[in-house]
Amino acid sequence: MALAERLTNLGTETAFAVSLAAADWASKGNRVYPFHLGDINLPTPANIAEAMNKAIAEGKTGYCPAAGIMPLREVLAADVSTRRGLQYSAANVVVQPGGKPVIGKFVQTVMNPGEAVLYPNPGYPIYESMIEYYGGQSLPYRYVQTATGFAIDLEHLRSLITSSTRAIIYNNLQNPLGCESSPEEMQAIADIAVEHDLTVLADEAYFEMRYSGESHSIASLPGMQERTVLLYTFSKKFAMTGWRLGAAIAPLPIAESIAKLNTNDESCTTHFVQAAGVEGIIGSQEGPLAILAELERRRDAAWGELAKIDGFVCPRPESTFYLFPKVTTVMKRMGFDEVGAFANAALHHTGVSFCTRKHFGRPQPAEADHFVRFAYSGLSVADIQEGLSALRSWIEGA
Amino acid sequence: MALAERLTNLGTETAFAVSLAAADWASKGNRVYPFHLGDINLPTPANIAEAMNKAIAEGKTGYCPAAGIMPLREVLAADVSTRRGLQYSAANVVVQPGGKPVIGKFVQTVMNPGEAVLYPNPGYPIYESMIEYYGGQSLPYRYVQTATGFAIDLEHLRSLITSSTRAIIYNNLQNPLGCESSPEEMQAIADIAVEHDLTVLADEAYFEMRYSGESHSIASLPGMQERTVLLYTFSKKFAMTGWRLGAAIAPLPIAESIAKLNTNDESCTTHFVQAAGVEGIIGSQEGPLAILAELERRRDAAWGELAKIDGFVCPRPESTFYLFPKVTTVMKRMGFDEVGAFANAALHHTGVSFCTRKHFGRPQPAEADHFVRFAYSGLSVADIQEGLSALRSWIEGA
Repeated sequence: MALAERLTNLGTETAFAVSLAAADWASKGNRVYPFHLGDINLPTPANIAEAMNKAIAEGKTGYCPAAGIMPLREVLAADVSTRRGLQYSAANVVVQPGGKPVIGKFVQTVMNPGEAVLYPNPGYPIYESMIEYYGGQSLPYRYVQTATGFAIDLEHLRSLITSSTRAIIYNNLQNPLGCESSPEEMQAIADIAVEHDLTVLADEAYFEMRYSGESHSIASLPGMQERTVLLYTFSKKFAMTGWRLGAAIAPLPIAESIAKLNTNDESCTTHFVQAAGVEGIIGSQEGPLAILAELERRRDAAWGELAKIDGFVCPRPESTFYLFPKVTTVMKRMGFDEVGAFANAALHHTGVSFCTRKHFGRPQPAEADHFVRFAYSGLSVADIQEGLSALRSWIEGA
Repeated sequence: MALAERLTNLGTETAFAVSLAAADWASKGNRVYPFHLGDINLPTPANIAEAMNKAIAEGKTGYCPAAGIMPLREVLAADVSTRRGLQYSAANVVVQPGGKPVIGKFVQTVMNPGEAVLYPNPGYPIYESMIEYYGGQSLPYRYVQTATGFAIDLEHLRSLITSSTRAIIYNNLQNPLGCESSPEEMQAIADIAVEHDLTVLADEAYFEMRYSGESHSIASLPGMQERTVLLYTFSKKFAMTGWRLGAAIAPLPIAESIAKLNTNDESCTTHFVQAAGVEGIIGSQEGPLAILAELERRRDAAWGELAKIDGFVCPRPESTFYLFPKVTTVMKRMGFDEVGAFANAALHHTGVSFCTRKHFGRPQPAEADHFVRFAYSGLSVADIQEGLSALRSWIEGA
């Protein structure tokens, strides 16, 4: 039985192989420190689960509208509007089973086969996968490491654009880099979008996951709201990754198309989970504040340990829960040519499991440096310190 | 902003327009009897919600594998195997957020653009939509009304097959017809699939929703398991439509492809909802038995009332929760040419809201008769009797 040819263009999250290797190592009786997972090992705030049970008791176990229940669309529109200084209505909000579904539905809605979409690389691997799966040309734009983080190589990005370029995916507060745009960089991306009439997917999964300063949305810049789709998720702020709740917040024609895709793809998002989402937005904010405070302690611990390692170059991010050190010098000193081999050796010598640059989109030609990603959201401060100091001992003692 | 051209081939569930008309009529202070919705107004069994809360308390709020949690895949494999006399393993089971996602993922996996897929018409409208959206040629096969139900027009079906036909969608225990195949008819479909090397999507959403007799799966016939994908859903048996839980049960290469689509589309199905599904399968069966018993009482009430209406031709189905009477004679007597106008008049004269044949796939040329669909799963016996006797008074008094 031959499967359809389109599947040859479907990518995946290769980071699952890292999970398997870690699980295999743990199954042999070894201690593993899971820095490879972008998941949160903290409970969802109790008021959210209580709201869900109230919804079930009220009979909210049947189908609901494809675009989501109106109370959730309304509170999300208001919340997202306030935080971004914009004006959205419920009609702009299309609820999804997580943030991820927005990526594929955005690509399907704005890109024809053969057209091109710019996307960040290193970046979330599903961008590349969905662009190529739906027959588009994926145009990876790149970052350079700076003293304080990473910056988009704007000249290179501009050089990629042709008349068939339709859209740009922009992930400020970036996974895996942990970086964010300067105001000038964000304005440059907006200028490019307007000049070339590009539709923008602003993946704002980490918009509220920051420890200082204030997030800004590219949708807030002049001329941008009408060409931008926001990816919103409940996963990080409320520690709800496994609940699968998110939304596309989009100009009306795109919102309507995405809702129609919902009708075809999954009917609706779990009814009572949406009621829980309403409580998340308008209920007590003690839970999400406590989650953020704990993540900040973990950031401090993880960055503090990594910064001590001789040869790691690791800016200190103010957002996301990722650290993306350059490890070129360390690998050279230890005799590693290939970053996957370095990660594998680290696992087997120290139990510290992490992803590499190769798990975040196809590496581009002539990348001279090596990078790895540490996600600190799934370990306690004590485990972070224990794991990363073991890593340091191995590296510095090698 | 021009949207992608593929969207012009995307269908929808036009029955939502019926919901809107019903809601509009109700909002004007009128009593509405909602026979248009294939939803169940009964609570999900309490043990299932309890299992979900236990899973949340155990921290099952994070990501889980794209193909589903292993306990659910294992119990589903065992349950589906037993009920069909087949042998599936957990590797064949790919959990989905509902039964519906199986349709689009099946089409994406087995059909190239330009290839053809046979599908039942009248049938669930998403079949037609997904075949055409993914660039295929949709080949509607038809049914003829018999004394006891409906039969597939096999000669017509065979006449549609060409060398580019790749698959057939087969919905035994059929929505909207309420019918099921004779053993001979099911064998004929299997023979056609084997002869033309067709992959089969067996939509078995109603496999366990029957009031007498026993369901049989086309996958159980010789040579069929290896070419058949089963659509399984928790929606009906456990009154869990809004929970969004189902599965594709498929030969390994197709299962692996569908799991990879999960990774790209939604990461995973809601984690703790899957734990609830385990309880549904292996826990007390009092809940689903009570649901089925209540649906049988409703079937008896609804069929009893419809059968009394002079001019309705309505076989009595032993499964599903649909009745699909022929209303040609009644429409003619009352002066209606168009079945939507008849349904609309019924709503405004009696409050009885129902779908018509036109909501179940594009009508085929030369259809001489008119049909409507009554779903009795969302009304109490008393409301069924009250609504349908009002309908009868209107029709017979007109």
